[in-house]
Formats: sequence, structure tokens, C-alpha cells
Amino acid sequence: MSLVVVGSMAFDAIETPFGKTDKILGGAATYISLACSYFTRPVKAISVVGYDFLEGDMDMLRSHGVDLEGVQVRQDEKSFFWSGRYHTDMNSRDTLVTELNVLGDFDPKVPASYQDCEFLMLGNLAPDVQRLVIERLERRPKLIVMDTMNFWMNVALDSLHQTLKLIDVLVVNDEEARQLSGEYSLLRAAAKIQSFGPKYVVIKKGEHGALLFGEGQVFSAPGLPLEEVFDPTGAGDTFAGGFIGYLAKSGEVSFENMRRAVVYGSALASFCVEKFGPEQIIALTHEMVDARVQKFVHLANFNLMPQSVQDAIDQSA
Amino acid sequence: MSLVVVGSMAFDAIETPFGKTDKILGGAATYISLACSYFTRPVKAISVVGYDFLEGDMDMLRSHGVDLEGVQVRQDEKSFFWSGRYHTDMNSRDTLVTELNVLGDFDPKVPASYQDCEFLMLGNLAPDVQRLVIERLERRPKLIVMDTMNFWMNVALDSLHQTLKLIDVLVVNDEEARQLSGEYSLLRAAAKIQSFGPKYVVIKKGEHGALLFGEGQVFSAPGLPLEEVFDPTGAGDTFAGGFIGYLAKSGEVSFENMRRAVVYGSALASFCVEKFGPEQIIALTHEMVDARVQKFVHLANFNLMPQSVQDAIDQSA
Repeated sequence: MSLVVVGSMAFDAIETPFGKTDKILGGAATYISLACSYFTRPVKAISVVGYDFLEGDMDMLRSHGVDLEGVQVRQDEKSFFWSGRYHTDMNSRDTLVTELNVLGDFDPKVPASYQDCEFLMLGNLAPDVQRLVIERLERRPKLIVMDTMNFWMNVALDSLHQTLKLIDVLVVNDEEARQLSGEYSLLRAAAKIQSFGPKYVVIKKGEHGALLFGEGQVFSAPGLPLEEVFDPTGAGDTFAGGFIGYLAKSGEVSFENMRRAVVYGSALASFCVEKFGPEQIIALTHEMVDARVQKFVHLANFNLMPQSVQDAIDQSA
Repeated sequence: MSLVVVGSMAFDAIETPFGKTDKILGGAATYISLACSYFTRPVKAISVVGYDFLEGDMDMLRSHGVDLEGVQVRQDEKSFFWSGRYHTDMNSRDTLVTELNVLGDFDPKVPASYQDCEFLMLGNLAPDVQRLVIERLERRPKLIVMDTMNFWMNVALDSLHQTLKLIDVLVVNDEEARQLSGEYSLLRAAAKIQSFGPKYVVIKKGEHGALLFGEGQVFSAPGLPLEEVFDPTGAGDTFAGGFIGYLAKSGEVSFENMRRAVVYGSALASFCVEKFGPEQIIALTHEMVDARVQKFVHLANFNLMPQSVQDAIDQSA
């Protein structure tokens, strides 16, 4: 079903304990669109890039079925640039450089061909901009999923709350959920966030997996234990892309189907961290995705003893 | 099947952000035995207490089917006493007082009636003492599960390694697994620990659940999201008790059955943190345990779409 992805397309320079990169392709919409591309195509992207964005990266995105009609190219400005350094435990990082450039006054355009949007993914951006996209769609999508970050809670909380009222699913990490809700318990944090608007809340916990809350239910997806986390950049966006990509492909919006979507998102994210930047997410195949999802099945699966067996044990004890 | 539990029976004084207790019943063998009692009875305990241990607590343990023949009562010494204060996030704590008392020269006795031991749970104790119990059993149990802590890695690492060679399952938390192995990745940490002796390793991650490693497989059990963690004291011991109690009841030692055992252990531990000390673990019913385990089933459960449905979606897309 028709899917629109909004977010940054950018350059990142990344340092981890395993090495560092020069400016490489990055941005929320990049990771989200690539992840979505393994589930449904086209992926209709809304973003803005500068004159320095590489035609080769555009071509790579097009070859993944990403429709770039909604991506503005500004000839007077450079692309958004972020540089960061991860600490040894990979769970925290320092931002070294943030150059907004084209994102500073981003005015998102929704092409006419995007007006059939049924699934809308709002990647991390100023909540004003996220809301503009919703307003510029003539018909409300079937499902609106949104990502955000601490930064907007600090500088644009009122606007963030206005946008939260309009969406269906908020995807944040545990730290962000705690800051937004003022609650330490993730169960309470999710309930508080639901009271702000979204019917569903997904809380990402990095290596510890993800929690899905909604319809009075909770689902816990495991994190896949890995030998090495090479570079966490983009893992959260890749998760969100796998999540909404799976939902858009199957077309069904229900808690049961979102359980699966969280597993697919987790599987995609587990690939992302294995190499620098989007390298691994560019090179996946459907077979790789299916095999990784089966790993999650095996990782999380348990069956209680049938009651008849249990009773037999009880009697013989 | 015949189950023996070794560990401290003690007094704890606990401070959490929710309140504080005077000296209340505590100790690894106490929590483990109580948890086991919901699966199999008798639970044959090996421990040592002082003249100050309360007859009422002895009676409570007996009423849970705990056999106290292996519990020495020393009339010349006080019981082990620990006092600690939890920080606001409940994930870290300061030890305020540790009085070894009777534990200082604990010489574990194995009564003749315990020699049929098939399942042995070595609660956290000096690794020398844990090894003594194994040596004093005439026949090697079918399964030996062991807990330990950072303290013994710091002061008795050689002895700990000698004991690790003799056991089947090590149950530790993530921090302990990392210290013992020198590996940050829990996947690598488990592999390293397996190379020390135990075929299976369980890594407890508090609110994030637990990981089971063995037979080349990994299982991830979720943590149950709770509104409030009231007091984490004894949760790890309760987990271990539920784990070995379930295995002893069913009698089957396999990775598949250990998946279930981890879930039962997690369910018992989730009760433990809801009240101060062992209060909640004393007062459980089988109905409460079964209902809690069903919560874990619902929490972790997901089913992939059948391939036929998937194919139909693919074709219609």
C-alpha cells in the first residue's frame, strides 16, 4: 500500500572504537526508505538535500525503488551534516558537529502523486515540519508513525505535543520515552504518552530489544545478541523503516500484526549495526531478511508444556 | 525429582525509595527454596543460621515443604546480616553493612537423606564452600546450577574457576558475566564462560529479561514491564529457584525445557520485586504463578504470517 517517508537525507561522519568514516550517506529518510524497500516499492520520499548531495547516492536510492519526486535539491545550500563519536559501550555518543544547512528552513513539498498516501512515516525532524506534511495531505493516511528525539522535547515541546495529537504510533527509545512522559517505568511512560495522542507506542531499548504498547496489550521483542556492534548509526531509523514497511506491505493495522512488524523492524536494525553507515542496509536480499527473522523466532520462542503432560508430571511427583 | 538447595539463610535490612525495613528474613537459600516450593517438595536445604534466627521463619519454611535437616543452628554466633540501600533507578545499590557471622567458617553438612540429590542449586556463597557440597555428594547430581557474584571474582577467582569446572549451568547477571569473561558482548561472554566449564549460561538482565545460552542456541526471555519495582532484593535468587524448581519438577534437562524454566524463573522473580523482602514469594498460589506465566506467553508471543498468506500479499502488491 502507498507509503510516504519524510526525513533528512544527509551526510554523516562517524567515529566508533572500530574506526572512522569521512562524510558518508546518512539521514533518517535514507535509512527508513532503504529498510522499507525490502517490503514495498515505491517508497515515496519527502526530503531536502543541497548541491553537494551525490548523484550516485540518488541513483542507489532509485535502484531501491525510492521515489525522489518529493526530494527538493537546493543549489544555494549544502546538505545537512552530522558528525558524532560513539563511546566504547556503543550506548552513548557525543555529537561533534551539527550543520543544519538545507534543513534550517525546510518547507516540505507533497507532490500530487503522493496524495494517495496510506502509510506515512515521519522521521525525526522539527515537529512543526512533521505536522506540515500531515496538513498538506488532502486525506488522512490510514496510519501515521512518528519518530522524534530529546532535542525537540527541549526546544519545541509545545509543537511536539501538537503533532503527537495527530499521529497513531510514536517510536522512541527508552530515554526519550522517560523524558517525554516524566515516568521512569516504561509501562507508565507508554500510558502517559498514549494519553498525549498516539494509540500505540514503540519503545526501542537498543541491545535489549523493543516494547510495543497498545490496545491494552504489551509485546516485548528481543534484541539479537551480537558479537560486535560495529556502528549503531541509523539503527533506530532502520527499525522504524522495517516496522512501517512491513505494515504497509501487509496492509493490516492491528496489535497482532504490529507484533510482527516490530520483529521485522528489529531484524532490519540488527543488520544495520553490523557495518558502517547504511552499507549493510543497501546490500540486503529478501533471503537474508527472512533468515534473520527466523533467528528472532528461534530466539524468542518457547512453548509451555501441554496441560496433559503437566498433569502427568504432577501425578508422578 | 530430588532437589537440594545450598546458600545463606539470613537477615536483611533494606532501604528503597519506597521505604525501609528492620531486620527481615533474607538469604539466597531462603528465596531459592521458597521459589522451588511452588514446583516440587520437599526442598532439601543446606545452610547455617545463628541463635538469633527466628523459629517462626523456620516454621514458615517448613510449611512450604523446605526440609531443614541440612540447616545447622549455631548457638555461639549470630546469623549472617546484610543491609543495603537501593538508588532511585533500582538498578544499583550500596551495601551499608555485611556481617558474615555464622557464614565466616561455614562447613556445609550433607545429611544422608540428601544423598539422593538429582538437582543441586548452589546459591551465592564462597566457591570453596560450593565445591565442598559437590564433593560431599556420593553421586554426581543430574544437574548442578550455580550462582555467584563479583565479590568472589575479586577475592577468590582461582577457587571460582575450580568450581565452574564441576557445574552444568551458571546463572549470573550481565555485569557479572562481563567481569568473569572480560567480554562486553554477552554472546561472547557466554561463550567464554562455557569454555570455563558450564554447558549452559543464564544471563539475567533485570528489567530487560534473561538470556539462556547452550547447545549452540540462544533464548531470550522478556522482562515483564512493571508499574513499580518495590524492592529488587532476592529477585535473582528467586529467578534461580523458579528455574531449577521447574526443571526438577519436569525432570527433563534440555535446551527446550530450559527455555520454559527461564520463563518460570522470570515469572517468580517478577512477583518478588512487587513487595519488600520475601513477602510476596511466601504468599503465592499455583494459580497466581500460572496466570503470571500466561502474561509472559502473551508478552513474548508472535506468529509470522503463514507463507501462503505472505505469497498472496506479495502477488497482490
